[in-house]
Amino acid sequence: MINTLPAVIAFDADDTLWPNEPYFRDAEKEIIKLLERYYRGDNLLEHLYQQEIKNLHIFGYGAKGFSLSMIESVIELSEGMVNGAEIQKIIDLGKSIMTYPINLIEGVHETLEELKDYPLMLITKGDLFDQESKIARSGLGDYFQAVEIVSEKNDETYLRLLQRYNIKPENFWMIGNSLKSDVLPIDRIGGTGVHIPFESTWQHETVSEDHAAEHNYHELQSIRELPMLIEKHIA
Amino acid sequence: MINTLPAVIAFDADDTLWPNEPYFRDAEKEIIKLLERYYRGDNLLEHLYQQEIKNLHIFGYGAKGFSLSMIESVIELSEGMVNGAEIQKIIDLGKSIMTYPINLIEGVHETLEELKDYPLMLITKGDLFDQESKIARSGLGDYFQAVEIVSEKNDETYLRLLQRYNIKPENFWMIGNSLKSDVLPIDRIGGTGVHIPFESTWQHETVSEDHAAEHNYHELQSIRELPMLIEKHIA
Repeated sequence: MINTLPAVIAFDADDTLWPNEPYFRDAEKEIIKLLERYYRGDNLLEHLYQQEIKNLHIFGYGAKGFSLSMIESVIELSEGMVNGAEIQKIIDLGKSIMTYPINLIEGVHETLEELKDYPLMLITKGDLFDQESKIARSGLGDYFQAVEIVSEKNDETYLRLLQRYNIKPENFWMIGNSLKSDVLPIDRIGGTGVHIPFESTWQHETVSEDHAAEHNYHELQSIRELPMLIEKHIA
Repeated sequence: MINTLPAVIAFDADDTLWPNEPYFRDAEKEIIKLLERYYRGDNLLEHLYQQEIKNLHIFGYGAKGFSLSMIESVIELSEGMVNGAEIQKIIDLGKSIMTYPINLIEGVHETLEELKDYPLMLITKGDLFDQESKIARSGLGDYFQAVEIVSEKNDETYLRLLQRYNIKPENFWMIGNSLKSDVLPIDRIGGTGVHIPFESTWQHETVSEDHAAEHNYHELQSIRELPMLIEKHIA
């Protein structure tokens, strides 16, 4: 059924349908406050980021790995002086990232409603359980004929998914806030990527302007503009 | 292609193809040793288990949630006295569970080789990234036409997978060490479950004998007996 229509429209979830990145950044701010007792150096944010990247090959993306990395950073930067209550505070910050109420980004609900006659997919990366929980909390699950939670979003991942669902690349649209994960790979495999920037982008997801300029994709200011863009290119 | 043969054979991974549970139990022993400085009460293992279960609705299954729960337990039971080096030790134990070398259970490789003309699947629950990493480290990935990592293994999960792959329940075999997750749901949805007990079973995965007795399933001592069982029932 999914390939009888001329376009399959896939959406990223975090920071495309609902805000997510701000919860991580707010948690980092709290952690930095907590660290001020122990560590006077510069570039605390950079320290936290480097620890996360160092652990990525063991933990993958998501709030649980983030929490563990933050704990490691705080132990290291406090030279082991951090106390139990402070570690518990970091775990609680992690839990709050895993349970926050989902508030849809402006225009999301109306746009999905407008596009609901197309086969819609959700493709998101991160912790399996956490992503499923967010989708359930969002109340949007029924809009999507397929939900795919993946550990990495690269050309290979998308090609595997297109094969699984028997979708031709030229019929595949992917909409997301990350050029690196949602948009540029789609151009490389022959689909149509639509970039809708969000207010903040995780450092790991940024790409250079030169790199982006080598690719073709659409850029929208708001998801509200999506139905018109799709209509213009299809039918 | 997957349903042109009379049987699709799906395997659980942890403690069915390779040992996993012993790494968690060994980590718990280390954590209990570490706690002895701070806590003299009984039932330490039960405390650790209860914390894990309490967090299951936020963390789901897997080594990252386990690590976070262990840290919480140790903070609580030490009344916040645990130090940074000890917390780091728990994180390192968690990391060792996420990176241990995969040693196949005796007979696994030969059995998969014997059964490779059937469509084989792998269905496992836990952390997405961690499970993918274990499958890659096992070197068994190529045996499986489909790999599904799920957040929970219940009747609903299996029915969804059978629908996705267009498999009739009567053609579906599932092989695993957990009666609760791998075997009893398969009987309930009309498939064939095969139980191969492993040396240890996580408390959360145990079922009462009475509950098990209400179901039909095969029980094998070793995965080596599987090809003969399947041959007896198919062909």
